[in-house]
Amino acid sequence: MKTEAAILVELNKPLEVVSLGLPALRAGQALVEIAYSGVCGTQVNEWLGKKGEDKWLPHCMGHEATGSVLEVGPGVTKVKASDKVVLSWLKGSGAEAGGAVYDWEGRRVNAGGVTTFQRHAVVSENRLSRLPEGLPMDVATMLGCAAPTGMGAVINVLRVRPGDAIAVFGTGGVGLNSLMAAAFSGATTIIGIDPSPFRRTLAKMYGATHVVDPAAGDPLEQIRAIVPQGVDVAVEASGLAEVMAAAMQATRAQGGRAVVVGNARAGATVSVDAAIFNQGKSLLGTWGGDSEPDRDFPRFGRLLGAGRFPVRDLLSKPYKLSEATDALQALADGVTGRPLLDMSLA
Amino acid sequence: MKTEAAILVELNKPLEVVSLGLPALRAGQALVEIAYSGVCGTQVNEWLGKKGEDKWLPHCMGHEATGSVLEVGPGVTKVKASDKVVLSWLKGSGAEAGGAVYDWEGRRVNAGGVTTFQRHAVVSENRLSRLPEGLPMDVATMLGCAAPTGMGAVINVLRVRPGDAIAVFGTGGVGLNSLMAAAFSGATTIIGIDPSPFRRTLAKMYGATHVVDPAAGDPLEQIRAIVPQGVDVAVEASGLAEVMAAAMQATRAQGGRAVVVGNARAGATVSVDAAIFNQGKSLLGTWGGDSEPDRDFPRFGRLLGAGRFPVRDLLSKPYKLSEATDALQALADGVTGRPLLDMSLA
Repeated sequence: MKTEAAILVELNKPLEVVSLGLPALRAGQALVEIAYSGVCGTQVNEWLGKKGEDKWLPHCMGHEATGSVLEVGPGVTKVKASDKVVLSWLKGSGAEAGGAVYDWEGRRVNAGGVTTFQRHAVVSENRLSRLPEGLPMDVATMLGCAAPTGMGAVINVLRVRPGDAIAVFGTGGVGLNSLMAAAFSGATTIIGIDPSPFRRTLAKMYGATHVVDPAAGDPLEQIRAIVPQGVDVAVEASGLAEVMAAAMQATRAQGGRAVVVGNARAGATVSVDAAIFNQGKSLLGTWGGDSEPDRDFPRFGRLLGAGRFPVRDLLSKPYKLSEATDALQALADGVTGRPLLDMSLA
Repeated sequence: MKTEAAILVELNKPLEVVSLGLPALRAGQALVEIAYSGVCGTQVNEWLGKKGEDKWLPHCMGHEATGSVLEVGPGVTKVKASDKVVLSWLKGSGAEAGGAVYDWEGRRVNAGGVTTFQRHAVVSENRLSRLPEGLPMDVATMLGCAAPTGMGAVINVLRVRPGDAIAVFGTGGVGLNSLMAAAFSGATTIIGIDPSPFRRTLAKMYGATHVVDPAAGDPLEQIRAIVPQGVDVAVEASGLAEVMAAAMQATRAQGGRAVVVGNARAGATVSVDAAIFNQGKSLLGTWGGDSEPDRDFPRFGRLLGAGRFPVRDLLSKPYKLSEATDALQALADGVTGRPLLDMSLA
């Protein structure tokens, strides 16, 4: 069986849309027909080589999606054929079956335990979760990455409480999920910081009580003008090392905490004044918002489905699989929310 | 009334032992006769100018001690005359009365809300706590700083759990309290890292299951030889920026946490690879081990008094007040545990 995929052959070059031969399913793997794939800043970084040398080229792309199971390999019990599923890079229960290798006219194309810029994908059981009841498949793509990372940062890592003041640096797909989670958590001052006017507009739609344009003056001063003592907590969702340091500085002394969810560029260094730790401020890391798919996806699904925010509007007008590079470019340019590849489009 | 004090007149010069006139008590202040004062790395940094310019010179020194209340000013209710007390830089309940100013033959000598390198001190009510029942006054000095900072880092901030692996960088007074708290918390691998052979010997007496000499080879490699995946948690008690970064690196991916309790040198910068945050490692700051005197001093007192560790041996042979500079030098040289000034010595 063959499928169509948008694969990365060379860094900084458009993805190539090619026909790939699917491998036979191994134990712990499932064959999934992708419905929608999200596009994340992680793929932009991969595409532009910002994660450094890429020894896996050529390879498949994408790590958040929804789809339907067509077939399962030996030993798979978590899902069965015809189940609607969420695909995520986060590992949940089930077998870890390793990566898949596809055939491109005799050439080897690598893939991890889950890839999604393709019409069909061979996926490790532990990257699959059942689609939460009633959640549309386009919106549910966010459960694969943006929601567990962005909401998890707020709910699992920072444990934001009613009355907190929070700053979210970078209001793309992940940051917008952090804003929504902060609103659900009862934060009363919610500041979105982003250089993109489009993303600042989105921020206001998804819970921000204030927005800050870092180009309009020192963002820390702008934040202090809103919360003089500094915010209680901050989320860093831009991936820029200097913003990680700024997020920490933006918090209050004696208990302020900032968490990094943005994808760091290869070789970037975070430099902070050592004395800031003695003030009782912390810079936290997290693996996917400390989210556990089996435990957290139903919760995040309830929040996305609650109707409090127009979550579908956060998704871009769908791109065709053949337009995957355009989606990456739009994300890099900051002129879209969460880009979506719709596999039903020819 | 006059008292004797060892004060800092000039950076990098021996403390001067002088006779000071005591100010009248203001509302919220108490006059305390000091029994023992601890000596902390913070004072070494002050003395050597490692905290930068010192606009308060000349000033009194010290921030952990025990003593007896002689007299209280208006409004003080937390303690009364003849109470045995612990003096700490950490603020608890009671009035914040600001600093005291002493008279040195017509010259103004500054002091914070608490100072302790002196036979008598005017102390703000909120820096005083009752001495825990049964705890010797020499051992109890550690409740003023080393215990809340070192034990608090483990018990309040890291919340070490039975079976954890922990690394403690710097095994002076604070680090040794972290080691003891780790042992009480059930950590099963407890690694003390210190360049001083004397302090490594102390580390083994206070709970360390392993010690590492950073001069004997890359400390991270030595730690990985003990715990291949990295330690669950780490305490940075040296105050060196590069050790702060190393403490974070020494922890495991997906949840490793290091907390900085060492006093940072002025202007020092912590530089860490930004990608380490995406691995889910965190670098935490804390204000005094997140300890609250009213809540935590009784707890730390029970641990110091439990008899599990020879806590008195951790204290140095007492120094006279007039030898305060020798105590600072011994601490700077790493040839002592927690130096103690014994005011009963002439």
